[in-house]
Amino acid sequence: MHVVMLLYPGLTQLDLTGPFEVLTRFRELTIELVWKTLHPVTDGNGLRLLPNATFETCRQADILFVPGGPGQAKLMNDDETLEFLRNQAEEAQYITSVCTGSLILAAAGLLKGCRATCHWLSIDQLSYFGVTPVKERVVIDGSRITGAGVTSGIDFGMTLAAKLFGEERVRGVQLSMEYDPKPPFTSGSPETAFPETVQRARELAAPFQTQRERIAQEAAERLIAMAPPKPS
Amino acid sequence: MHVVMLLYPGLTQLDLTGPFEVLTRFRELTIELVWKTLHPVTDGNGLRLLPNATFETCRQADILFVPGGPGQAKLMNDDETLEFLRNQAEEAQYITSVCTGSLILAAAGLLKGCRATCHWLSIDQLSYFGVTPVKERVVIDGSRITGAGVTSGIDFGMTLAAKLFGEERVRGVQLSMEYDPKPPFTSGSPETAFPETVQRARELAAPFQTQRERIAQEAAERLIAMAPPKPS
Repeated sequence: MHVVMLLYPGLTQLDLTGPFEVLTRFRELTIELVWKTLHPVTDGNGLRLLPNATFETCRQADILFVPGGPGQAKLMNDDETLEFLRNQAEEAQYITSVCTGSLILAAAGLLKGCRATCHWLSIDQLSYFGVTPVKERVVIDGSRITGAGVTSGIDFGMTLAAKLFGEERVRGVQLSMEYDPKPPFTSGSPETAFPETVQRARELAAPFQTQRERIAQEAAERLIAMAPPKPS
Repeated sequence: MHVVMLLYPGLTQLDLTGPFEVLTRFRELTIELVWKTLHPVTDGNGLRLLPNATFETCRQADILFVPGGPGQAKLMNDDETLEFLRNQAEEAQYITSVCTGSLILAAAGLLKGCRATCHWLSIDQLSYFGVTPVKERVVIDGSRITGAGVTSGIDFGMTLAAKLFGEERVRGVQLSMEYDPKPPFTSGSPETAFPETVQRARELAAPFQTQRERIAQEAAERLIAMAPPKPS
């Protein structure tokens, strides 16, 4: 099976490198990291990754994967990328994302009528696209598998791999990755973090989140204009 | 403060990308990814990362970090790398690693007399270098902070950041990374995995582990030859 992972400027690299680490340990999977060009792609915090295929050269995905990150906002109205995703999705067996990658899938019209998740700060924006937001770590709705924020990509990768290869082999990979997480603090979700930590995170993110929300609304309007609801 | 992270062919990328994701969210830290050249470095599973400094151009580290991976074995007797690490370590405030990166630090003589950890499959090899192996997720011994296998890098990054910036800020970063891990299975350590999963992992790894152990023994002999124990 072939995995196509979208790379783009301003992605959050761990959204992609987490699932990559899991999936690449299954030798049946081939993986292409895909962007418009083969030039290095810089993540939101300065890590430079190299694509190994372009939209033109990449093979048909069995599994299509989209990471999130601050650069997601710019892709929400990028026709070239949305069209690429739609084309790949036609024959893909699984259409997947981590973090705000689900907003990109939604903007491409690929999650309409589905249940999906997203980073906790942005999950409500899924509803603009006819998607039902679900606050779980990994959400499976038929062929759509979405992970929550950033680090959920490891849990997402294991969940997907278990569907493909069964629990026993994933247990082996979990052991090889020593995935026995022991966060020194309990602050990984708005439900478990201190209220003041959540409040502060919302304040810090507010300027970008306002912009991100406006862009999502515009993208949703464009999507509706492309395929208006049938008159009843 | 300045962080120098070693890149090298055959590293396990998540050993590095996990801590990078945590540390890069603290704007006080600058980070350089360093290798012998600026050419792309390919991880053990084919991900290509770009260094942004070489051994010659990189700045003095306040925090020196070494990831693990299959390529670790080749570095154990690489004088250029070991010498670079020793030089950087002289003025670094923290000398750190994830996974089998601790074996590289040990081969450079930088963990002698310390308590440290490593990937569960290779942790016993630390003892060849006068290091006390400790089976914990993250081990702090003064200026030496070491993480266990692969995914421990996220816990390592949070532990280090808490020392530098305090718990409150790390709680905020944990929330922004939605680090609320929910592995679908319990198989992340030899203590919690099924015995047959551990047995199978040992069998699969055996050929490389035999080679890795021989290389560690040779590296330890070279280190002793460089600085023989003082006669009592």
